[in-house]
Amino acid sequence: MTETTGTTIEADPKLPVIRITRDFTATPEQLFRAHTDPALFAQWIGPDGHDTRIEHWEARTGGNWRFVSAHDGAEYGFRGCFHEVRPDRIVQTFTYEGEPDGVALETLWFEDLGNGRTRLHAQSLVDSFEGRDAWLAGGMETGVNQGYAKLEGMIADGAV
Amino acid sequence: MTETTGTTIEADPKLPVIRITRDFTATPEQLFRAHTDPALFAQWIGPDGHDTRIEHWEARTGGNWRFVSAHDGAEYGFRGCFHEVRPDRIVQTFTYEGEPDGVALETLWFEDLGNGRTRLHAQSLVDSFEGRDAWLAGGMETGVNQGYAKLEGMIADGAV
Repeated sequence: MTETTGTTIEADPKLPVIRITRDFTATPEQLFRAHTDPALFAQWIGPDGHDTRIEHWEARTGGNWRFVSAHDGAEYGFRGCFHEVRPDRIVQTFTYEGEPDGVALETLWFEDLGNGRTRLHAQSLVDSFEGRDAWLAGGMETGVNQGYAKLEGMIADGAV
Repeated sequence: MTETTGTTIEADPKLPVIRITRDFTATPEQLFRAHTDPALFAQWIGPDGHDTRIEHWEARTGGNWRFVSAHDGAEYGFRGCFHEVRPDRIVQTFTYEGEPDGVALETLWFEDLGNGRTRLHAQSLVDSFEGRDAWLAGGMETGVNQGYAKLEGMIADGAV
């Protein structure tokens, strides 16, 4: 388990799962908006210095999405479908197009802690431990931490 | 591992995965059609004595689906989204609406064995061993076997 800048990233020892939690000074509604409104999402997702371009975005049950992350002249595509979008829970698939047969099933939920605080839970499930561990070793932690720091800033600025 | 009527159903000891294989006297194209054409799919999916009514069906990357299985006056709903649909591989999510927060990530692929034979591979990934084992204990084997027997009959009859 790694905890930096308030984010906990945990690899389950028995399941090919990564679990992330992070507390925000925000309501569940704000975190839902930050994950479903494409204009907001594009502003915080991913590491610093990456520009996100939303190519397609239907944040509803049965919809699908695609975005491109651009950095230093290179572009990285990501895509998936929304299995379920409801105010307290989002379930979606996730593929990095550079590895087109790799698919994660992602579940996000928003736990209301009271006093204007909300805990974001994000679970990512894949079908091999090797794939999960390669993802962790590949620096996803930096992107997650920097992304959530940007989101925290947006919330503090009243942008969400 | 259980093998009956030509179908192998295997619970992975280390991953919360069920793997099913079955050989058919059919081409990959026929098996693809049987899984993507709603009129064909409705005729073979599920156990004997269940009538399948397709409520929604977009068998394309990013589409979604829902069907209802009716038996003895009771109805059972199932739904999901198609993460990817391509001739050799289908990746989709799967939820039984009676347990709305349970989600499986399903991967199907069609292995051409030559001589007009094709091996169907179906992998179902969930986020707990308990959930996986409950699904196996709940009689899914009967439905799988009876469904594939119907599909085999349709192929033999030239209906696919």
